[in-house]
Amino acid sequence: MTTPAGFALDPRLSADTLAVAALALSDLRLMNDRRFPWLILVPRRTGAAEIIDLAEGDRGLLYGEIARVSEALKAATGCDKLNVGALGNVVRQLHVHVVARFAGDPAWAGPVWGSGPATRYTADEAVRLIARLKTAGIT
Amino acid sequence: MTTPAGFALDPRLSADTLAVAALALSDLRLMNDRRFPWLILVPRRTGAAEIIDLAEGDRGLLYGEIARVSEALKAATGCDKLNVGALGNVVRQLHVHVVARFAGDPAWAGPVWGSGPATRYTADEAVRLIARLKTAGIT
Repeated sequence: MTTPAGFALDPRLSADTLAVAALALSDLRLMNDRRFPWLILVPRRTGAAEIIDLAEGDRGLLYGEIARVSEALKAATGCDKLNVGALGNVVRQLHVHVVARFAGDPAWAGPVWGSGPATRYTADEAVRLIARLKTAGIT
Repeated sequence: MTTPAGFALDPRLSADTLAVAALALSDLRLMNDRRFPWLILVPRRTGAAEIIDLAEGDRGLLYGEIARVSEALKAATGCDKLNVGALGNVVRQLHVHVVARFAGDPAWAGPVWGSGPATRYTADEAVRLIARLKTAGIT
């Protein structure tokens, strides 16, 4: 795990999420929205906005982290579908969403982005979900 | 380029898109919606719904194709942001979106998915855009 000098998590990402773990490349965070089990990966690379802004080696690390998070999130939740996306229209700092979707969830079959205000977890719910994700191998 | 026996493009993807090229793993298609320069990659692998359903080698091919399409789409359009996503809530067949976004486009800063009905290209517009993408190195 390396954190280059000058890297700082975007304050909006920080405000909307809870820390889960520091992976080799990325900070792994849980979106604080109990409507959807929703993780984000934030590569600790200053100035990156697109996946193609990363060096080849970092892209490989990121893809490995996306796969690991995808497998664990699917195993922990039994979701119907994963949604994986890098958008960045609002927060430009590169971040990749990995979301567990269920037929009938509050945004189904649309995307979670722009689907209305978040409903916060209680502390107990957040701690238990993060523990469950770790048991499923997310880190 | 290999097409396994039994692979067939989902009919809804086929109806919504125009053929651009067959890449090593994926069929590259242009979403027939002139509101957004919007490409999709459809790996020719029967039964795959998630990126993690692909074998390791195929994942590597897909990531390479996403990068190439991203670079060319950005170069050809001068977009403000790329949106890259694998959702599949409506059409389950694995497909990856690579979309050129502009501040002020009809869905900005929200996602393109679920942003209302497509506006079709004229034949001339579609042919010219595909030619421009090819000049930018999309294939």
